[in-house]
Amino acid sequence: MEKPKLTIEEMAVFCKRKGFVYPNSEIYGGIAGFYDFGHLGVELKNNIKKEWWKTFVQQRDDVVGIDGSIIANPMIWKASGHADGFTDVIVDCKKCGSRFRGDQLIQDKLKIETHGISLEDISKTLKEKKLKCAKCGSDLGEPKKFNLMFATNVGPVQTSSSAAFLRPETAQIIFTNFKLVQENARLKLPFGIAQIGKAFRNEISPRDFLFRMREFEQMEIEYFVHPEKQEECTFIDEVLDYELNVYSADMQKKSQQMKKISIKECLSKKIIKTKWHAYWLASMHKWFVELGANAEHFRIRQHVKDELSHYALDTWDLEYEFPFGWKELQGLSNRTDFDLKKHMEHSKADLTIFDEETKKKILPHVICEPSQGVERAFLVFMFDAYDYDKKRENVVLKLHPKLAPIKVGVFPLASNKADILKKARNVYDELKKEWACTFDLSGSIGRRYARADETGIYASVTIDFESLEDDSVTIRSRDTTEQIRVKIKELKDILGKFLNGDKLSKLGKSVE
Amino acid sequence: MEKPKLTIEEMAVFCKRKGFVYPNSEIYGGIAGFYDFGHLGVELKNNIKKEWWKTFVQQRDDVVGIDGSIIANPMIWKASGHADGFTDVIVDCKKCGSRFRGDQLIQDKLKIETHGISLEDISKTLKEKKLKCAKCGSDLGEPKKFNLMFATNVGPVQTSSSAAFLRPETAQIIFTNFKLVQENARLKLPFGIAQIGKAFRNEISPRDFLFRMREFEQMEIEYFVHPEKQEECTFIDEVLDYELNVYSADMQKKSQQMKKISIKECLSKKIIKTKWHAYWLASMHKWFVELGANAEHFRIRQHVKDELSHYALDTWDLEYEFPFGWKELQGLSNRTDFDLKKHMEHSKADLTIFDEETKKKILPHVICEPSQGVERAFLVFMFDAYDYDKKRENVVLKLHPKLAPIKVGVFPLASNKADILKKARNVYDELKKEWACTFDLSGSIGRRYARADETGIYASVTIDFESLEDDSVTIRSRDTTEQIRVKIKELKDILGKFLNGDKLSKLGKSVE
Repeated sequence: MEKPKLTIEEMAVFCKRKGFVYPNSEIYGGIAGFYDFGHLGVELKNNIKKEWWKTFVQQRDDVVGIDGSIIANPMIWKASGHADGFTDVIVDCKKCGSRFRGDQLIQDKLKIETHGISLEDISKTLKEKKLKCAKCGSDLGEPKKFNLMFATNVGPVQTSSSAAFLRPETAQIIFTNFKLVQENARLKLPFGIAQIGKAFRNEISPRDFLFRMREFEQMEIEYFVHPEKQEECTFIDEVLDYELNVYSADMQKKSQQMKKISIKECLSKKIIKTKWHAYWLASMHKWFVELGANAEHFRIRQHVKDELSHYALDTWDLEYEFPFGWKELQGLSNRTDFDLKKHMEHSKADLTIFDEETKKKILPHVICEPSQGVERAFLVFMFDAYDYDKKRENVVLKLHPKLAPIKVGVFPLASNKADILKKARNVYDELKKEWACTFDLSGSIGRRYARADETGIYASVTIDFESLEDDSVTIRSRDTTEQIRVKIKELKDILGKFLNGDKLSKLGKSVE
Repeated sequence: MEKPKLTIEEMAVFCKRKGFVYPNSEIYGGIAGFYDFGHLGVELKNNIKKEWWKTFVQQRDDVVGIDGSIIANPMIWKASGHADGFTDVIVDCKKCGSRFRGDQLIQDKLKIETHGISLEDISKTLKEKKLKCAKCGSDLGEPKKFNLMFATNVGPVQTSSSAAFLRPETAQIIFTNFKLVQENARLKLPFGIAQIGKAFRNEISPRDFLFRMREFEQMEIEYFVHPEKQEECTFIDEVLDYELNVYSADMQKKSQQMKKISIKECLSKKIIKTKWHAYWLASMHKWFVELGANAEHFRIRQHVKDELSHYALDTWDLEYEFPFGWKELQGLSNRTDFDLKKHMEHSKADLTIFDEETKKKILPHVICEPSQGVERAFLVFMFDAYDYDKKRENVVLKLHPKLAPIKVGVFPLASNKADILKKARNVYDELKKEWACTFDLSGSIGRRYARADETGIYASVTIDFESLEDDSVTIRSRDTTEQIRVKIKELKDILGKFLNGDKLSKLGKSVE
């Protein structure tokens, strides 16, 4: 029962038309890789962040958050390896000067996977396959490395020491604050530090709408464990029976298909190496599914050897099947003690923590770093919510009630009648104290329902002539179009239950 | 009954020690003007933003939000005037090369106000008063203008057209999206568009902890009205009796003191020129006070003529009395149609909207732009909450329950007793579903209360030997140290009321 997917371009059009996302500075022709979130997009994005923070920070004992700055002391990027190594390979056209990302040019032209391909292999492939400029067809120059960090200058004097960068990832700001946070929040291993915030990458060719942007937002956790207790995962029982579509490096090497496997089996067959890694993969997948995403549209894929970042011992991506293929949603790396060690070396600060048991100083390992883009999550929820209803001849945006930008629409049936209008207004004023609501009185009630469906409004409340007599209103479900009649004095309570997942038919008397 | 204020330096120390705010990249010696928010700071900051958004966006019919990108098409800054005019005056020391902000140097050395002082006047004053370098005492060079926007380069090719800037204010991203948002959100004048997001200013001398940073966050509304109906303020009745400390340009000119005046009087005596401006000034002040700030620590101060920005017809700042003097918290400008007009000129896009009544195209005016820094609000709430309790011999951080990073602390009295521990754990697990909670079992109960008071935990719940028998627990108020005894099954309900502002003594039986 796969529903027809939109293309990414169609999704961009829909998002613009309904007020979710606009190209930045569109009146000036835009700027590639930058987008603005409109009046509905900002609410959806905030809801996604809120739910993530609630699940992974506020409701957990073992994770606290931070919010670090985007511009940091540039020494950070020297220590982390980004200053020297955070590069993509670019290729110039000798004639028209167009620039391309080497791996993407090869992937697009030859239709092959290029995960982790090196500068040398790009150069070799371009020559062997005699690839030409994608724009004008002329010869290409020698490929070279390009650093993806945006550079700027801090302070009024421009010197080599005043150069600074916009952070390309939020992770490093967690590592540099590691010791202060651990001490002040009195954290004991194992624990995580989480952060939501913007990151910037000067992509050579931003593409696919919100998928590959130059300015984006990350939600991530660095999860630290005792170096000698990497196997003691307190929560593993919670997810042992959880099943995921799995696509290991080994399966990729053997050109096998992905397979649905339980976490228990992944661990016993050593498909996933550590319990913590398995736990976080399952937890992140579960988070999406509990917020309404379709479990079958996800898989976890292990990085093949050439693809692994310099800091990673093992990495699994949580991938989603976008209209343009299976793509990374979230990278979960085992970063070991690579980063803390590097920062100790470069800063000379002591980042070890004291182990009460052995009375020794230890340097924790990041057993797993669940790190994802907010905008990619935004796309997932939009794609999985988007539904064209043939019967209604209208788009229905079936966002989870926790994510829906507007929860309730209040519609006076005959909006030219002062007493109906007044009653509706009172209902609206009451509901607005609790939830994001809208008050709409223009057009037929059918038109108003259609508008509500398209923008994901979860419940519609209609006030009609009868309401004046019986103090009742109609609640309509976006997803089923079911309607029930309820007393106004019970409305808040019933809507609360409906928004919390109860079925509408159980909450009141059905009406036609 | 003024409580002794901390200095800003002492506040910085407190914020670091308790996990609210750290200097960015401290292990590398920091970087001036950049700060990271710790595990408590991030929650306080998020709560401030959440309350602001709830009050001014979600609970209003006439305001919607957006979330635009930080890097935008550079044409925006040409049109807005920032590319040419967003400057401060710098002065170099001829000998040691130190750089100073001209107006600040004069203000610091001569102890005079320098609001809106021009390059020419700075130059004249420096010469007349024979001011010298603040570091080495040598002669100063000729003052010159310095653009405060951080510049960077977008895309792999560095050309004049690839130069871009980090936005120095969020306002312009609202103006460029004005038409799309108005149409898609179906907004009718008067209406506002709000945004919370980061902005960057390459300050010559960042100072005063979070007060003047290079990277900060703004919360702002651009409020649009019909150009011919600037006086029709729907909500003015709500605030007519509201009183504020007022310091008009006229009062400043005559060297008078500020005066406490009602909005009604401000309007009738034309101290504030338009109703909308008056309404927003009162509303913003009210927001602070309702979240626990002390009304008397605020005043509204009108910009004197030389101080007005190029785009502003009239500006009032909401100021707060910081330990280092009365300072701007929020600027509320009447920007007229300056920005929309400029963007129409530069982009050639039509930003007018159709007036149903007159059937004419009109260009709305920004009658008021309430714009404030999140971090300055953060400081206000921290300063007004900070209280040294002589009796307790401890700091009590009296943050409003809506702002407190952690709402409830759960403390098992004898944490070495398994049954008490288990019961406490169950209570904690239940409460954690509702609120940000902490579970603390280290040290004496007195020590745990003290720790809770210092970090602003609003309610402490203690589980003791008696709890095992009577299924009751003690709730303690942070602000009064009052304690009541309540049944566990009623705990959630009672805490909910307490956090909502009810007095503890009304909610249960007092205990010693």
